[in-house]
Amino acid sequence: MNPWDGVVTEEEKEIYRAAGFGKPSGMGSRPALLIIDVQYRTVGTTPAPFREAVKEFPTACGQVGWDAVHNIERVLALFRERGWPVLYPYVSMKESFDAGRLAEKVPALMTVAAKGYEFVREVAPREGDILLPKKHPSAFFGTPLASYLVDLQADTLVVTGCTTSGCVRGTVVDGFAYNFKVAIPHECVYDRGPTAHAVNLFDMSEKYADVMTTEVCLAALRDLAPAG
Amino acid sequence: MNPWDGVVTEEEKEIYRAAGFGKPSGMGSRPALLIIDVQYRTVGTTPAPFREAVKEFPTACGQVGWDAVHNIERVLALFRERGWPVLYPYVSMKESFDAGRLAEKVPALMTVAAKGYEFVREVAPREGDILLPKKHPSAFFGTPLASYLVDLQADTLVVTGCTTSGCVRGTVVDGFAYNFKVAIPHECVYDRGPTAHAVNLFDMSEKYADVMTTEVCLAALRDLAPAG
Amino acid sequence: MNPWDGVVTEEEKEIYRAAGFGKPSGMGSRPALLIIDVQYRTVGTTPAPFREAVKEFPTACGQVGWDAVHNIERVLALFRERGWPVLYPYVSMKESFDAGRLAEKVPALMTVAAKGYEFVREVAPREGDILLPKKHPSAFFGTPLASYLVDLQADTLVVTGCTTSGCVRGTVVDGFAYNFKVAIPHECVYDRGPTAHAVNLFDMSEKYADVMTTEVCLAALRDLAPAG
Amino acid sequence: MNPWDGVVTEEEKEIYRAAGFGKPSGMGSRPALLIIDVQYRTVGTTPAPFREAVKEFPTACGQVGWDAVHNIERVLALFRERGWPVLYPYVSMKESFDAGRLAEKVPALMTVAAKGYEFVREVAPREGDILLPKKHPSAFFGTPLASYLVDLQADTLVVTGCTTSGCVRGTVVDGFAYNFKVAIPHECVYDRGPTAHAVNLFDMSEKYADVMTTEVCLAALRDLAPAG
Repeated sequence: MNPWDGVVTEEEKEIYRAAGFGKPSGMGSRPALLIIDVQYRTVGTTPAPFREAVKEFPTACGQVGWDAVHNIERVLALFRERGWPVLYPYVSMKESFDAGRLAEKVPALMTVAAKGYEFVREVAPREGDILLPKKHPSAFFGTPLASYLVDLQADTLVVTGCTTSGCVRGTVVDGFAYNFKVAIPHECVYDRGPTAHAVNLFDMSEKYADVMTTEVCLAALRDLAPAG
Repeated sequence: MNPWDGVVTEEEKEIYRAAGFGKPSGMGSRPALLIIDVQYRTVGTTPAPFREAVKEFPTACGQVGWDAVHNIERVLALFRERGWPVLYPYVSMKESFDAGRLAEKVPALMTVAAKGYEFVREVAPREGDILLPKKHPSAFFGTPLASYLVDLQADTLVVTGCTTSGCVRGTVVDGFAYNFKVAIPHECVYDRGPTAHAVNLFDMSEKYADVMTTEVCLAALRDLAPAG
Repeated sequence: MNPWDGVVTEEEKEIYRAAGFGKPSGMGSRPALLIIDVQYRTVGTTPAPFREAVKEFPTACGQVGWDAVHNIERVLALFRERGWPVLYPYVSMKESFDAGRLAEKVPALMTVAAKGYEFVREVAPREGDILLPKKHPSAFFGTPLASYLVDLQADTLVVTGCTTSGCVRGTVVDGFAYNFKVAIPHECVYDRGPTAHAVNLFDMSEKYADVMTTEVCLAALRDLAPAG
Repeated sequence: MNPWDGVVTEEEKEIYRAAGFGKPSGMGSRPALLIIDVQYRTVGTTPAPFREAVKEFPTACGQVGWDAVHNIERVLALFRERGWPVLYPYVSMKESFDAGRLAEKVPALMTVAAKGYEFVREVAPREGDILLPKKHPSAFFGTPLASYLVDLQADTLVVTGCTTSGCVRGTVVDGFAYNFKVAIPHECVYDRGPTAHAVNLFDMSEKYADVMTTEVCLAALRDLAPAG
C-alpha cells in the first residue's frame, strides 16, 4: 500500500514498470536528516483542520502537518541517539528587498507574521544542528547545504518536512542530482492538498528517491553503524 | 479548462485559492525558448502508442510526444521569425563513467541506443542555437545555462519538451528560483503518464510558472517587440 | 600607471599581450554595486596601521581599508543618486556548526568579536539594499546573489570591498563566469599585503574584469542613463 | 623554500602569520586527482620556450607546461596504481554560440585550432576516467563535478594542470568552498608568467589549499590506504 494508490492508476504504474523506473537506491552508511520548513507558518500554532489553520497563516497545512511532526519526532530521536547530523533548511522572514517571482506567484507569502517563522517546538533545532535560511524552494539553491554535506561526508539524505510538492520535492531533485541517496519516510512529509502530495511522492519514488513508511525507514537506519 | 481539471478536485483547487497561490508572473520582454530533451529517445523514431514506443526506447513517451513536437514547431517558428534565442538542453549519451543515483533508480536509462540521442528533426537545432548537454534532470544543474541567459539578458523562459514531471519540472523550479519568468505552453510538454503530467502542470501553475495553451502563449509572444 | 606596475615586470606584461589577454569588457547599461565584507572586522574600528589593527581583529587590513572606504563612499553616493541597486555580501558571525576547511586553514577567523561583524558606518546599508550573508569566499557561492541580479536585470557589477585576493577575487571570477561585465575601481578594494593586492588586480584585469581608477569608473557610470 | 620566496617579501609573509593564515588542511583518506586543461593548446605540440609556443597557440605556456606534464605523470601513475579516481576538466572547442565575457576579455581564445583541444598524450585520459567539458574557469562552474565527487565520496582534491592563476585557482577556491581538502603539488601546475604563478600559489597556500612539492605530495598519498 503506497500513498499514491488510488490516485495513480494501475495502468500508469504499469507504464513506469515497462520503462524500467522505480528501482531502489538503498540506504548508504552516513545519513543526514533534513527537516525542511517545519515552522509554525506551515502547521499553525495549534493543531486544526486546514480551513481554520489557513486563517492563521496562508502557508499553513493544518492537521496533516501536525501528524507529520509527530512522525518526524521519532526519526529525530534516533538521529539524536546515534549522534548523526541534523540540518534545518528554513524560510527566513521576508525582507523589504525580497520580491522577484515568488512575490508575483504567491504574494500572500510575503507577509506572514513573525511567530510563523519560529521552529515547531517538538522538532526544533538545538545547539550544534545546522541552520540554513533559504529564499527559494530547494534547500540546495542559494545555500551552502552541499558544502555542509561534503564536510559531514554524508551519503544519504533522510528528507522530512514540507511541502511535499514544493520545497521537499525541490530538495529531493537536487539531492539526487548531487548523487546523494535520498530516503523519504512518507508520513514525515506533508502538503496542503492530498493529490499533489500523493503524486509527488509517486514521482519521487519512480525517479529520485526511496519512499517508505516511517517504520521501514527507522528499521533501515537502526541497522546502520553509529557515527564514527 | 485546464489540463488538471478532473484530476485535481475542485476542493483542492479551492485550498490553493484560500492560501493565495497561483497568481500570474506575466510575460517579460526578452523571451528565450528552451526545448528540453526532444530527442528520438523520448518520442520514438516514428509516431506510435506508448506500448509500442517503449519497446524501441525505454524512455519513449509515444504519441503524446509527437503531438507535442508539432506544437513546439509552431512556437519555434515564431522564435526563428523574431530572432529570439533558442536553447536545447539535452541528454548526452551515457559514458562508462556515468553512474551514480540515476543508474540505481532507472538502470534502463543507461543503455539507450545511439539513434535515441539524435534531435527530433522537426524541431532540431540549427547553427547559432545553444546546445547544453546535461547529466541531471534540471537544465540548470551542472550546466552553464544561467550564464547563457545572463549574456542574452533574457527575462522569460518559454519551456517546452519533456518530461513534464522530470526535466521540465526540474528546470522550471530552478528557472523560478533564478527569478526568470516562466511560461509553459502546456501542449508543448509531454510525459509518459497522464496523472503525473496533469498534477505537475497544476503544481507549476500554482507556484512557479504561468501555464497556458500554445495559442495563448503565441499571442502573448506576438505582442512583444522584436529582439533589438 | 597601474597598481601592478613594478610588481609585474614589463616582460610578463608583454607575455599577456602576446597571448591576446586584457581586452576591455566595457560598461553595460544596468550596473549593480557590490560592497563586499566592509565590516569593522576588515578595517578595524578606527584607522590604524596594519600592525595595530590586526591586534583588534585578526582579519583587519588597517589603513588601506579606511582609504578604500572613503573611495567606496563616492561610488556609493552616485548609486544612491541614480537609484541603482546596492548589494552587501558580508560574512555573518560564525556559529557553532561552522567549521570545515576554513577552520583548518585560518582558525583565527572563527572567533572574531561581535563588533567586528557590524557594517562600517560610512558605507553601511540602508532600507531596500540587498543583504547577503555568506559562508564562503565568493559572494555567489551558497547565496542567492545570481537570483537577485537576474531580478534586477543587472548586466554590470561594480565590485568594491575586500580582500582583493580573497572574496573580491572569488566574486569577480564567478561574476565573469555568469557573464556579467565586471568593473573594479581599484582604490575601492583592499587587502592586507601589497603584492597579493597588486597581482590579483593584474590577474583580474587580464582575464575577468576592467580595472580602473575610481575617477574613471565614476565618469563611465555618470555617462549611463538613470535607472528606468 | 617555497615558489613564492623572493616574490612575496618576508614582511608580507609576516603579515599573514600575524593574522593567523596558512595552517594546513591535511590530506584526507579518499583522494581524487584533477588534471585541468592539460591539452596541447596550453603547452604546445612540442616543448618550446614561451615565445615560440605562443605562436602555435595563443594559450600555450611553453616549456614550464612540459615540465609540469612530467611531474603530473608521476602523480597520475600512483593514482592508476591505487585505483583512485582521475578527473579531466577540460576546455571544449568553442562553438558559434559561445561568446559572452570571455570573447570580450581574451578574443584570441575563441579561435584555437582543433589540435589544441586534444589531451597531451603523456597524461591523457583512459577508459573509466571522468571527462568534464567546461566553458568557464572553475571546473565546478556549470559542470557536474561536485556530483561526481559526492558519488566517489572523495574528501581530498589533488589539483594539477593550468593555469595556476586561472582555472586552477578558480577550481581550488570552489573546491575549498565545497569543503574538500585541497592539495597542490606545485611543480604540477603551470602558468605563462612567473609572478602570477608564484603569488597565486602563495594566496592559495595561505587561504585555500596545502601547497607542497610533488615529492611531499606523493609521500603523503603513498601513506593512504588503497581504495576500498
